[in-house]
Amino acid sequence: MVKVKIVGATGYGGIGLIELLAQHPEAEIVALVAREDVGRRVSEVYPHLEGFCDLPILDAEDPRAAGAEADVVVFSTPDRVGMFEAGKALAQGAKVLDFSGDFRFTTAEAYADYATRHGKEPTHGAPELLGKNAYGLAELHREAIRKAPVVGNPGCFACSCILGLAPAAHARLFDPMSVICDCKTGVSGAGKKLAATHHFPARYENMNAYKLAGHQHVCEVERELSLQYGEAVRLTFTAQVVPLCRGIMSTLYAQLAAPATEEALVALYKAFYKDSPFVRVYGSKAPVGSNCVARTNFCDLVVSVDARTNRLRVVSYIDNLMKGQAGSALQNINLMAGLPETLGLMRPGMYP
Amino acid sequence: MVKVKIVGATGYGGIGLIELLAQHPEAEIVALVAREDVGRRVSEVYPHLEGFCDLPILDAEDPRAAGAEADVVVFSTPDRVGMFEAGKALAQGAKVLDFSGDFRFTTAEAYADYATRHGKEPTHGAPELLGKNAYGLAELHREAIRKAPVVGNPGCFACSCILGLAPAAHARLFDPMSVICDCKTGVSGAGKKLAATHHFPARYENMNAYKLAGHQHVCEVERELSLQYGEAVRLTFTAQVVPLCRGIMSTLYAQLAAPATEEALVALYKAFYKDSPFVRVYGSKAPVGSNCVARTNFCDLVVSVDARTNRLRVVSYIDNLMKGQAGSALQNINLMAGLPETLGLMRPGMYP
Amino acid sequence: MVKVKIVGATGYGGIGLIELLAQHPEAEIVALVAREDVGRRVSEVYPHLEGFCDLPILDAEDPRAAGAEADVVVFSTPDRVGMFEAGKALAQGAKVLDFSGDFRFTTAEAYADYATRHGKEPTHGAPELLGKNAYGLAELHREAIRKAPVVGNPGCFACSCILGLAPAAHARLFDPMSVICDCKTGVSGAGKKLAATHHFPARYENMNAYKLAGHQHVCEVERELSLQYGEAVRLTFTAQVVPLCRGIMSTLYAQLAAPATEEALVALYKAFYKDSPFVRVYGSKAPVGSNCVARTNFCDLVVSVDARTNRLRVVSYIDNLMKGQAGSALQNINLMAGLPETLGLMRPGMYP
Amino acid sequence: MVKVKIVGATGYGGIGLIELLAQHPEAEIVALVAREDVGRRVSEVYPHLEGFCDLPILDAEDPRAAGAEADVVVFSTPDRVGMFEAGKALAQGAKVLDFSGDFRFTTAEAYADYATRHGKEPTHGAPELLGKNAYGLAELHREAIRKAPVVGNPGCFACSCILGLAPAAHARLFDPMSVICDCKTGVSGAGKKLAATHHFPARYENMNAYKLAGHQHVCEVERELSLQYGEAVRLTFTAQVVPLCRGIMSTLYAQLAAPATEEALVALYKAFYKDSPFVRVYGSKAPVGSNCVARTNFCDLVVSVDARTNRLRVVSYIDNLMKGQAGSALQNINLMAGLPETLGLMRPGMYP
Repeated sequence: MVKVKIVGATGYGGIGLIELLAQHPEAEIVALVAREDVGRRVSEVYPHLEGFCDLPILDAEDPRAAGAEADVVVFSTPDRVGMFEAGKALAQGAKVLDFSGDFRFTTAEAYADYATRHGKEPTHGAPELLGKNAYGLAELHREAIRKAPVVGNPGCFACSCILGLAPAAHARLFDPMSVICDCKTGVSGAGKKLAATHHFPARYENMNAYKLAGHQHVCEVERELSLQYGEAVRLTFTAQVVPLCRGIMSTLYAQLAAPATEEALVALYKAFYKDSPFVRVYGSKAPVGSNCVARTNFCDLVVSVDARTNRLRVVSYIDNLMKGQAGSALQNINLMAGLPETLGLMRPGMYP
Repeated sequence: MVKVKIVGATGYGGIGLIELLAQHPEAEIVALVAREDVGRRVSEVYPHLEGFCDLPILDAEDPRAAGAEADVVVFSTPDRVGMFEAGKALAQGAKVLDFSGDFRFTTAEAYADYATRHGKEPTHGAPELLGKNAYGLAELHREAIRKAPVVGNPGCFACSCILGLAPAAHARLFDPMSVICDCKTGVSGAGKKLAATHHFPARYENMNAYKLAGHQHVCEVERELSLQYGEAVRLTFTAQVVPLCRGIMSTLYAQLAAPATEEALVALYKAFYKDSPFVRVYGSKAPVGSNCVARTNFCDLVVSVDARTNRLRVVSYIDNLMKGQAGSALQNINLMAGLPETLGLMRPGMYP
Repeated sequence: MVKVKIVGATGYGGIGLIELLAQHPEAEIVALVAREDVGRRVSEVYPHLEGFCDLPILDAEDPRAAGAEADVVVFSTPDRVGMFEAGKALAQGAKVLDFSGDFRFTTAEAYADYATRHGKEPTHGAPELLGKNAYGLAELHREAIRKAPVVGNPGCFACSCILGLAPAAHARLFDPMSVICDCKTGVSGAGKKLAATHHFPARYENMNAYKLAGHQHVCEVERELSLQYGEAVRLTFTAQVVPLCRGIMSTLYAQLAAPATEEALVALYKAFYKDSPFVRVYGSKAPVGSNCVARTNFCDLVVSVDARTNRLRVVSYIDNLMKGQAGSALQNINLMAGLPETLGLMRPGMYP
Repeated sequence: MVKVKIVGATGYGGIGLIELLAQHPEAEIVALVAREDVGRRVSEVYPHLEGFCDLPILDAEDPRAAGAEADVVVFSTPDRVGMFEAGKALAQGAKVLDFSGDFRFTTAEAYADYATRHGKEPTHGAPELLGKNAYGLAELHREAIRKAPVVGNPGCFACSCILGLAPAAHARLFDPMSVICDCKTGVSGAGKKLAATHHFPARYENMNAYKLAGHQHVCEVERELSLQYGEAVRLTFTAQVVPLCRGIMSTLYAQLAAPATEEALVALYKAFYKDSPFVRVYGSKAPVGSNCVARTNFCDLVVSVDARTNRLRVVSYIDNLMKGQAGSALQNINLMAGLPETLGLMRPGMYP
């Protein structure tokens, strides 16, 4: 039975993880920490949890939280929170899983590059942990995640892009300077914080590109694809928001080094992911859309070739709050706790 | 292990039940029957089922379907299909659960009244089964459902209205001629069949009342409320469609016979449903909406009194495809098979 | 050429009025006042206005605003703003149109009742103007609006309910204690102010009733229907929000004093509104929905009778931001300026 | 007063044009032709047109249709209808505007290429007209449209892509083999015809790429960009559908031949479109989204450079049913009739 403490329990990531853990046969939530609604039962504020999780929301300093015996402490918190708290959790014998960018990079330089792009302070708060941490994308770093004391959960866009291009990068099929990631996300990707641009009437029947000057996820995508490629991959990334709640559709383009057929690529992708139960690979005729992965931990990849221009085109679908956040988190917790990777996660979506 | 055969497996009700049964610890699907896509794997047509249910879609006459050994045969079919097939299933030793209006009434007269209102042929196809059947609303007919050979799953609107007014009817709190049911459903309530009114662009940012001349669900609501009341209850029912996929919000009004407080009514409702784990009762200040029950089998009731006019007002929320269809169906299958009522159904919704 | 100054120009009501006035052949905007974005061109903040209205947003004290020569000053402001500013505008020779509840009531007592229900200070700020003001629902108070120095634009829900029941009230067809108004609004009805309940992800695929303890619009509905009836009408009112941007669907019920046919009622309603070009009356079979009135100033009424229970049922559709706000406002401005009531407003909706 | 006859009057394009013409000061609709609902008033079937256009829907052979004296006959019909009817209209002295691909190409070869890609018969039905026709994108072919007897209205995706890249192509700023068009459309882009993929529940909270094997609009985009460039431009095109009603967002990428700044590009684009009132050019910081152009004839272009990879990135927003269809059509009719290009079209969108 893995004991989990969640810090930042009432954001989308935290609540999503509570929902999953509440149904998990081998996990137990030992404490919920948040800054709002302290003292209330979480199910009072989120009635859909009633009977599933009725724990109180605690202040971080509350002895029931600070002293909770946890195997894994999850920081579902913004950038630059987990890095200052991780050491304490490790000292108490727990492992740490962080949802922000704090532990997605393994050197102070890489973190500084990311933080700068993200408009954050570039100095890491726990440089001694960098290098010991793992990047929490199980499909590429399964073994490292099992062993690492600290794991950085991937960004949602990053997860969709990396899974979509890793097999082709690994096989060095494309020009590493030719990659374009055109990404669309549902509005929940922006989190729970109120914003004029995400007010329902402003967002209804509206779509737009944003952060055109540069999105912070580009760092981890380039790093991971470069690792697979064995050479620097550089890409153009466009973030766009469309009016649905959950879902990411990332359309990924790269110039093929040599002509290739869709069949050959589909086979290569399937082989690459043969031990990854949450990645499903399809050719261009499969009736796949973001609703096939909605509310699940799956990533569905539709692989095709634009023969006229000799371009690889992969459409990568995930649920931004599941495979892009709480689902990957539970996948990581399972690995960190020595449990089967799929435990509590293997369920179909719902139609329609 | 209860063996289930589903006829009409590829409509919303059928697929919903497949999704639930695929995760059920004590159930097994033995055959899927439908008229379209015969011969294909169900997961080829509905990719989200891949790995969860890969059974072939069979013609009704296929020996693998006709001869399947089932404990329960589910007819997720339109009106006037199940009534002609139920006898055969019973003869093979199975119990029958029907999703249409075919077995919601226990006399030929009551059926004729319903069918006429619904624009169907009034003569029942299996009158010998009427009286042996049970109305499949577990909260009111748990024992009868356990024993009946044939169960008629309730209509989605009906389910929300009956659960919302049954406690007050049972206590005879209101004038039985004063009831108004103002019901709003998401578009999936109309099923999978294409219609100009449910084409996405026609339905986007559009809401309207329909069937103003009379909706067929009114029969079962009046019957059930009258049974609870011990006297004829007659009501006005309005069906309305709003642009979301899943969800019913029924706002129910009745003139109170004597002044009552919200507190007293909430207590009375909670007592009435104390053994019904899928009904949750709230007062008027609870932050409940249709998303609290979305993709679950719960019915959330918000009970209040309009003191100025001495009216009871109950807002009843369900997911029309879960408690309104496949969820109630599994609840019934559990009862029919002697399993715990909540097996495979007790899970929270997802936020947001 | 009527000169209009808009105070509170950047809320939904203000922007909506700018859009209409920008295309109006006989109107001119002379000043825009708001508290945010002062100093910027309105089209910088709202790019869709570029080329249509490029006026600067001014502080109320700016001489260009305070000294603007306006024929009508519009207060598109929250409750208890316009009442303190109206006198100054009148002194400068302008008429006043207010969007809040400040001038919807003609006595200090009626205002106090409304304000109390709305959780506001009950003392009116300009009692000397009460009695001189008109209720800005042109269909019922056309002549008064033409002459009044101060007009209170109606509430959006109120507009839909009053128009839907006024003809039957005027003819005293129903029991005045039997009225129920079940109202559904799109999310824009809650205005531009950010709220957790109107954050896009929280509102997507979600609907709920709110303010069950009492909605402030009930006062003006009861007052207007009582005026038509010649006797006190008392009603139950339910406000509900559904996930679309624009639109109100109010379903209105009343117990008929004597049996009546739909045909007779449709005829009576048509006669009542024969000089009101923005009200269209239909029987229960017309394919009318909220999209028929979206982005227009029309109110579409679907009149029917539930013969089983002898109840009148009217479904009233408006666009909450047009007939429910900016459209009615322009209709009032036209009347106040001696222009044809329909000028700049007579255009069809858009399909789909 | 230009007299317009519309064939295919009850599809989205036809109804959209009726809405515009009903408010146009210099146009008159002389006949409406369709295959469904013949004999009914168009406003009976589309109630939002009541009082704006109450003409009957006529069969093509009806003398009131066949003999109508029209200055412009509009074919709002599928491919391979207008080409067989255009001659007759021309013989009666009318000009022809066709919404399909029939007259978007000026040689039989180019048409055959398009038709083949589109899965249609490759032989043109009126080859004698090819070469006399004009491509109906006013911003690039204003003069030709004024004079041509036959005009082919552009495809909606094509319109957004061509306007987005024409200035850069004209200036030969990019590698002509490097272009990628990643296009997202609202569901109304697929028209009024029912389809399982556009049934509301199937489309709600769902997005997907489609026609990955090749979309027919690519032909006209490559042709127009090549014309501007003076050399063959070849591109990868991805069509995607997102769950909103109206709107196209096309994100366009091309490798810059030499480094360029956003400022310089914005200036170049503004200069290119200085005489095109419906194209508005913005830099990457403008708060522009598809809602800025919704229900208008504008195309909003957000021009930026990804300096890290030296790529041009243009986000092009239109309303697929306005600038992408009926709006461009009226712009063309104005030109064909010698009227000001903007007549009846210059109005702002609506917020929110």
